[in-house]
Amino acid sequence: MLYFENDYCEGAHEAVLKRLIETNMEKLPGYGTDKYCESAKEKIRKACGCPEADVYFLVGGTQTNEVVISSLLKRYEGVLAAATGHISLHEAGAIEYTGHKVLALPHREGKISAGAAAEYLETFYQDESHEHMVFPGMVYISHPTEYGTLYTKKELEELSGLCEKYHLPLFLDGARLGYGLVSPDTDVTLADIARLTSAFYIGGTKVGALCGEAVVFPGKAPAHFLTMIKQQGALLAKGRLLGIQFAALFTDDLYMEIGKNAIETAEILKKALAEKGYRFLLASPTNQIFVILENQRMERLREKAVFSYWEKYDENHTVVRFATSWATKREEVEELISLL
Amino acid sequence: MLYFENDYCEGAHEAVLKRLIETNMEKLPGYGTDKYCESAKEKIRKACGCPEADVYFLVGGTQTNEVVISSLLKRYEGVLAAATGHISLHEAGAIEYTGHKVLALPHREGKISAGAAAEYLETFYQDESHEHMVFPGMVYISHPTEYGTLYTKKELEELSGLCEKYHLPLFLDGARLGYGLVSPDTDVTLADIARLTSAFYIGGTKVGALCGEAVVFPGKAPAHFLTMIKQQGALLAKGRLLGIQFAALFTDDLYMEIGKNAIETAEILKKALAEKGYRFLLASPTNQIFVILENQRMERLREKAVFSYWEKYDENHTVVRFATSWATKREEVEELISLL
Amino acid sequence: MLYFENDYCEGAHEAVLKRLIETNMEKLPGYGTDKYCESAKEKIRKACGCPEADVYFLVGGTQTNEVVISSLLKRYEGVLAAATGHISLHEAGAIEYTGHKVLALPHREGKISAGAAAEYLETFYQDESHEHMVFPGMVYISHPTEYGTLYTKKELEELSGLCEKYHLPLFLDGARLGYGLVSPDTDVTLADIARLTSAFYIGGTKVGALCGEAVVFPGKAPAHFLTMIKQQGALLAKGRLLGIQFAALFTDDLYMEIGKNAIETAEILKKALAEKGYRFLLASPTNQIFVILENQRMERLREKAVFSYWEKYDENHTVVRFATSWATKREEVEELISLL
Amino acid sequence: MLYFENDYCEGAHEAVLKRLIETNMEKLPGYGTDKYCESAKEKIRKACGCPEADVYFLVGGTQTNEVVISSLLKRYEGVLAAATGHISLHEAGAIEYTGHKVLALPHREGKISAGAAAEYLETFYQDESHEHMVFPGMVYISHPTEYGTLYTKKELEELSGLCEKYHLPLFLDGARLGYGLVSPDTDVTLADIARLTSAFYIGGTKVGALCGEAVVFPGKAPAHFLTMIKQQGALLAKGRLLGIQFAALFTDDLYMEIGKNAIETAEILKKALAEKGYRFLLASPTNQIFVILENQRMERLREKAVFSYWEKYDENHTVVRFATSWATKREEVEELISLL
Repeated sequence: MLYFENDYCEGAHEAVLKRLIETNMEKLPGYGTDKYCESAKEKIRKACGCPEADVYFLVGGTQTNEVVISSLLKRYEGVLAAATGHISLHEAGAIEYTGHKVLALPHREGKISAGAAAEYLETFYQDESHEHMVFPGMVYISHPTEYGTLYTKKELEELSGLCEKYHLPLFLDGARLGYGLVSPDTDVTLADIARLTSAFYIGGTKVGALCGEAVVFPGKAPAHFLTMIKQQGALLAKGRLLGIQFAALFTDDLYMEIGKNAIETAEILKKALAEKGYRFLLASPTNQIFVILENQRMERLREKAVFSYWEKYDENHTVVRFATSWATKREEVEELISLL
Repeated sequence: MLYFENDYCEGAHEAVLKRLIETNMEKLPGYGTDKYCESAKEKIRKACGCPEADVYFLVGGTQTNEVVISSLLKRYEGVLAAATGHISLHEAGAIEYTGHKVLALPHREGKISAGAAAEYLETFYQDESHEHMVFPGMVYISHPTEYGTLYTKKELEELSGLCEKYHLPLFLDGARLGYGLVSPDTDVTLADIARLTSAFYIGGTKVGALCGEAVVFPGKAPAHFLTMIKQQGALLAKGRLLGIQFAALFTDDLYMEIGKNAIETAEILKKALAEKGYRFLLASPTNQIFVILENQRMERLREKAVFSYWEKYDENHTVVRFATSWATKREEVEELISLL
Repeated sequence: MLYFENDYCEGAHEAVLKRLIETNMEKLPGYGTDKYCESAKEKIRKACGCPEADVYFLVGGTQTNEVVISSLLKRYEGVLAAATGHISLHEAGAIEYTGHKVLALPHREGKISAGAAAEYLETFYQDESHEHMVFPGMVYISHPTEYGTLYTKKELEELSGLCEKYHLPLFLDGARLGYGLVSPDTDVTLADIARLTSAFYIGGTKVGALCGEAVVFPGKAPAHFLTMIKQQGALLAKGRLLGIQFAALFTDDLYMEIGKNAIETAEILKKALAEKGYRFLLASPTNQIFVILENQRMERLREKAVFSYWEKYDENHTVVRFATSWATKREEVEELISLL
Repeated sequence: MLYFENDYCEGAHEAVLKRLIETNMEKLPGYGTDKYCESAKEKIRKACGCPEADVYFLVGGTQTNEVVISSLLKRYEGVLAAATGHISLHEAGAIEYTGHKVLALPHREGKISAGAAAEYLETFYQDESHEHMVFPGMVYISHPTEYGTLYTKKELEELSGLCEKYHLPLFLDGARLGYGLVSPDTDVTLADIARLTSAFYIGGTKVGALCGEAVVFPGKAPAHFLTMIKQQGALLAKGRLLGIQFAALFTDDLYMEIGKNAIETAEILKKALAEKGYRFLLASPTNQIFVILENQRMERLREKAVFSYWEKYDENHTVVRFATSWATKREEVEELISLL
């Protein structure tokens, strides 16, 4: 069976696993105070061109969104996000569970624009009764988005400028950041992100790690961020598990390197799909491919390959998602193509 | 430097790590739906003598307490716990963050008694204004406790009976359960715990795993427990990481086996301490030893060994904690003894 | 200055005030256990044709929505509501503050349809990942809506049927219920509402009381509802203040009687506006009138009358709201008409 | 039947009621923006000797504690309070419902000491693991306490000094403040309280109003306090109801005047009780009297008088509470005395 269901179906990249094995019996202090965490933070600061950044390691994506957002918001504030954003739809109300509203913005292929956010903010402050409403307290974007799309540097700069104007933190969910940074279609670097956001995270779970996300505050983390991590049950006793993995991922450019594999295999697959006349839901420049399949063809393909149902397209067609990853082999892609 | 600071300073037991390595590149579905999670659950059900139990895997102890307690309580209820309980003191207000009060009970060496709980409950329901108060909605105990002490089967039965009488869930925090089950001083088995509680967890983080706790509901988990796990940011994408580890820990009695090492090394150390005339804060039958050290002697010892400050005893003495674990070697204990 | 800004700009109806004065020095028990609360509940049960209903008195509308909704929802559930609903927009995130998401539905003139709700529910349960999403746990409607519109009996029956099918409570926000019940355009009675909903409230603040809303559970209130009221700071020590007022409002049909005054004065005003050629944003059958005014005319009118800015219509026009109430005098309406 | 059960069993003081009647049909803007609220705030600022104070009106005591405390705390903080404090015991977990822990301090007759608070704070910051614990974020006291006792000016100054040292807000719950300010045994004035606390409230519900508490921030209210009031369902549409009452209470020293009546009647009762040989649980200098009654005598008295059960004293005795108020008549006290 071919596996294109998601980008987290294997364990860890072998170089990451190797370091876990090598360090396994070292005795280290807990809660992220060990030397590997320190080293990983230092490497990430360097990669971001941001020597003063505060870096923390958390375990998963929803957890990271929940901890960061609820730590940055004041209690009368909500978070602006695309209506299709992960926090809007697929985190079981995690943000609301912490007492905050997700304020949905219109999106285009998963992206929000500075224009749409500006309009929301202007309308809000013009409303005479806005003190009876949820204050917009930060902006959340994902990059790549849930549709695999990417912000351009100009778009990020516009969002960043708007946030600065309104004194709002801009938070970037980088669950798949590794795949966004190496896309041939991007002009955005890690340093750009560090320059333009107040907080972002570098996804590990989907890019070579067993688990783990690295939260970066290019400026300063909120006071007592560690206590808030603990309060939300997100502080790992064996913090080493995260530090060792991220230290490996940020050694010899591994994080970028393995990102490229996902992009290259996705490009091959996209090209083949296009040549065979398949239609795409949208043009995604990263590792997720959204294809419109005729229903019977989809069912036949399901006998040999695993992929994700995305949504109904029309009576006879369905949108499905193929995802490649750091671990996808060219042979697998070729085998999939041969079945199409 | 000798390391007796805690029981989570190494990585994973080698048999656990071996299985992670062997399965690393297998493609598996996410969120705990893989075959290793299923197999681990089955092994745990068997070990508990509880074929119908619902089993879930979470990442850490505070997270597990927070998710389970907030899922079991109604919103007008709080949780009864020892004033020294982990949830009372050392989880940064995690339970309160979910909206629930921890109702502190008096303790003896970290344990609460059915008598004290019964008195609380009777007083509560006799109070004419109890509808203006937090309803006691469940009972939390840790076993071993934060002081390394253990409930007897009779004590557990009394607590269980009381809970049944008041229709309260009894939840047992087993962060160090492995060390409690193999203590020579216990008459409590895993099957007893499954029989006497509504929910408990089998700690992995401190007993041989990189991370992970197995929550067992001998009866039935709360409806939509998975959604609540997700809502609290506690659902691991690569759930396999937990399933594979627990499957290894519950193969060939490994969990019990490695627990014994901690107990045996602790026994050697306790015996030596007693022979050398050291005083103990209390008699702990598991892997944590609380010793009263003269301050200067403590300082000298600190140059060669790492251990935990516990609390001030008097002007000239301090209580410190030595912890052994599944990974403690006899040589290390002997070297520590030679320094005492 | 003429006052048409809202329906809560006076104190209490004189018959309500009279009863407060007459009973002022009676010594009564607290927290809603007095005889006037009991009598008011009984009168309301009778008016609803619902002798078994549980009735509670709360102080204000947002409070009532917050207390009722958070008491009915399970923690993994959210509430379906019109995107324009009071809880969606104008309660400062009160529902989210209690941990629950407001799930916005499309609306027509402030109303949601059973069709739109059904589509949401079907899509939700068809989604394979719905366990990662907020469960729709109840349906909230306002009647009259924020646009002064009314559900027909048929529409309510359809919503009620859908809720029954999905085992969801249907909750009706009746902040202005008195004005809805006596509209010439309605076929919905108080008994219909009691028959078709799981909970609703009869607004007092906007219909003749100094403050107060009567929550009716035609079936049974959630267990320990009083404790949850207290927990949210909504339990009045002098509960009599609410009981005495509602007892007065439900004596000799006063609540309906004073509702009619608002409707009659609104009808006169609407007729005059139409005759003078003004355009309406929508046809509202209750006490709120939404008129499109040319901006300069609006400014001139503002010198003599107070009314609400609603929203910008186009460059040269603004939507404003005129509200009548139980207290509006015909002379006031005529004077306003003379200014138009 | 004689009524000494509590201090909120009547409606409003006649002068307060008179103003409600006189202003009843005036058309006023909502949400506390009317001229009576403004005037009441101004009068309160004057009475506090605090011309810059921010003043807000809320409806009840638990609500006020909940709104103020949750607005002042950061999310990783809890509130220090006497174990017997209203927020600790009798508010149904209202503080925890907003996500914050009440950190219980030992008390003497309902009072906490700067010494006990200092010890808590020192121990906390000395604890190496305090980042895993709830940060003490403010201090809550009630004055008079739940036992009717009063802080001396010196005690308040010590608490205030401690709070300043640790940058903690000091919040004073003045549900019965009127009775505390006029006790012959106090040296604390309203101006002292304004000088020594960060926030306090002047209780209306128990001192002459139908409902209402005036929150005073001698410095500055938290940013967007109004929005947080709304968010907790505590913003009254007809804010006038509170403004008019407090304007009356702070006209011609009425608030102090009516406080004196409670104290004087309590003094008469206490003197008679002492002369007749009754024992007191403690010496309370305000309007609450805690008496130890022999059980059969208590039962006989219950046939003619209503008073509060407080707690069991021993097998044959019970502690009961008699409360006087602004409304207690001398004749009533004399009649009660004749029954003793």
